[in-house]
Amino acid sequence: MEGVIKSYGSANMIHKLKNKDSLFLCVIASTLTSRITGITGAGATPELTDYTPAADVELVMLGEPLCLSEIPKTVVDGVAAPTPAVITKASLDLADIPFLVVDAGAAVKPNIPYMNINETPGGDINKGNAVDNSEKIFNNGFILGKNLSKLTDHLVIGESTPAGTTTALGVLTAMGYEVDHKISGSTPENPHVLKHNVVENGLKLSGFKAGELDTEPFKAINAVGDPMIPAVAGIAMGSTVPVTLAGGTQMTAVCAVIKGIAPEFDFSSLSIATTVFVAEDETSDINFIANQISDISIFAVDPYFEKSNTIGLVNYTKGSVKEGVGAGGAMFAAMLKNVSIEDIRIRTEELCREIF
Amino acid sequence: MEGVIKSYGSANMIHKLKNKDSLFLCVIASTLTSRITGITGAGATPELTDYTPAADVELVMLGEPLCLSEIPKTVVDGVAAPTPAVITKASLDLADIPFLVVDAGAAVKPNIPYMNINETPGGDINKGNAVDNSEKIFNNGFILGKNLSKLTDHLVIGESTPAGTTTALGVLTAMGYEVDHKISGSTPENPHVLKHNVVENGLKLSGFKAGELDTEPFKAINAVGDPMIPAVAGIAMGSTVPVTLAGGTQMTAVCAVIKGIAPEFDFSSLSIATTVFVAEDETSDINFIANQISDISIFAVDPYFEKSNTIGLVNYTKGSVKEGVGAGGAMFAAMLKNVSIEDIRIRTEELCREIF
Repeated sequence: MEGVIKSYGSANMIHKLKNKDSLFLCVIASTLTSRITGITGAGATPELTDYTPAADVELVMLGEPLCLSEIPKTVVDGVAAPTPAVITKASLDLADIPFLVVDAGAAVKPNIPYMNINETPGGDINKGNAVDNSEKIFNNGFILGKNLSKLTDHLVIGESTPAGTTTALGVLTAMGYEVDHKISGSTPENPHVLKHNVVENGLKLSGFKAGELDTEPFKAINAVGDPMIPAVAGIAMGSTVPVTLAGGTQMTAVCAVIKGIAPEFDFSSLSIATTVFVAEDETSDINFIANQISDISIFAVDPYFEKSNTIGLVNYTKGSVKEGVGAGGAMFAAMLKNVSIEDIRIRTEELCREIF
Repeated sequence: MEGVIKSYGSANMIHKLKNKDSLFLCVIASTLTSRITGITGAGATPELTDYTPAADVELVMLGEPLCLSEIPKTVVDGVAAPTPAVITKASLDLADIPFLVVDAGAAVKPNIPYMNINETPGGDINKGNAVDNSEKIFNNGFILGKNLSKLTDHLVIGESTPAGTTTALGVLTAMGYEVDHKISGSTPENPHVLKHNVVENGLKLSGFKAGELDTEPFKAINAVGDPMIPAVAGIAMGSTVPVTLAGGTQMTAVCAVIKGIAPEFDFSSLSIATTVFVAEDETSDINFIANQISDISIFAVDPYFEKSNTIGLVNYTKGSVKEGVGAGGAMFAAMLKNVSIEDIRIRTEELCREIF
């Protein structure tokens, strides 16, 4: 397995989790930040990003999106790449890993059963004060994590939050981490300057300076964050079993919030699992961010999409999409159950043909 | 265990389930039927019945209701009996059984995480056409049951639906079962004539005759049922592990709907677990109803509340409350994990002292 999963940090969790049962959660949320032109590739137009989280989880659960006639995709320079939900679905199906959806405030609600922990989406962080109830969301997440962790050996938590790297940048900046040009994005040309300016505006309009909220994670989220971050932090902290945060640099914001809430938190039972498209992204640096927080194990799975006969998947190797809907963590969890990365890639290609 | 769990039907499930892991779900729903004066004891006033389902599940999850300043209780002739949620909480806590809430359409939503499968409550069945989407609710329940059953060996499904015995009477009547004076109720004086008249009005105003919908369960629910019934039927049919329906005569309506949807359904992996207060109720007959549907195993747990030093619990032995929030099935599931009925009674008494 070592050949396709690269690990950073102490990485001792992989042996503890081998062959154990996992439960995969996908936390969905929206903010109006995703309506800013050019900030995200998670939707064909800024308006359609409202539908992406619901369509993603419908696709994973049912094999097709119900709320949209088209599959969410990233289109850059006329080249399309499919939502990472297809990778997540392939991985979970092959390993028979149960899947539950958690709504932390999606603009459009999915037409499938989902766990409600918050209804209201966040605002546009460019205007500041984007979230008004992050502590309540965290508390609900904590209760949910405590209960769900009784049902499994391992919680894997993914997310679908359009413009979520910008809100993650906001929270990390507000809390004083060095993150400029280190946050990933869903397009090959990572719009660092746009993201930086949005966060700067939001912090100013919320009445805070960068770094001022190092011990106030809920204030940081309320100013320039999104509702996914406190939800995932709450679930992870409430869990009594090992947790894998399935995502890229957004999950470092979750870790920063956890450390802000509980400076003594033991990160040895928590890891981040992502794709190599994030881990080896030249426009960002997940390890640089994580190392500022704690010794966090990071696993990066390589599905060798350069070998794929599906052009949309090959585009992942050129910087499109990279990660999302917990794709990296879903592959990681499937491989813990002895599913091969070749089978995941082949099933992902089949799904692309079936769905598109 | 035989001394305190009475069984009816083939009852072979108890040996299959001993020491297996259970997941307890509580499905909550409302209809405006509960506003009819005298029809239910599940709330201090007809208006307060809107809060009962949310308060019940908040109590089980957190130990106190958040949405109401007072605990739901049944008051008859000045004598109060506490919500059966205290029995459910005592049982689940002692056996460390995980608990999840499913909203099938509660009028007031709980302030805790819950699974959304339908938002809208039902109308007053006295006016007919009380539910407009029972098939959609069923389909969502089916998806949920399929996914949740991957997480456990045994699904236990309780409910909190004020006036739910009246809507169950409606569905069973519409489907042609002989149920007059056979449906239980939450008060010592079971208002059979009132319930009968409400169902008769509702069927007439919906354009149907009693018995006409024997093969049309969704039409029966849409006319004179409640949103809990298709939700529980869907979860039970979607499950790939044994299911215990935790409730009284309301659960026979669920079984009738299951048989109506799938006449070939195998009832050997489904049972009903309730309290002796229902099974030995002289104003109703759960076995008489169940036998018309199939050979359904029914377990009835006796917590010997006549031995209790808590007057509200002694009132259960005089016909108050009897069942609800899956109390009988929660005791049953705890006993499968070797918790004694004495410990459940003692913990229930402690909870009554702590909460009231």
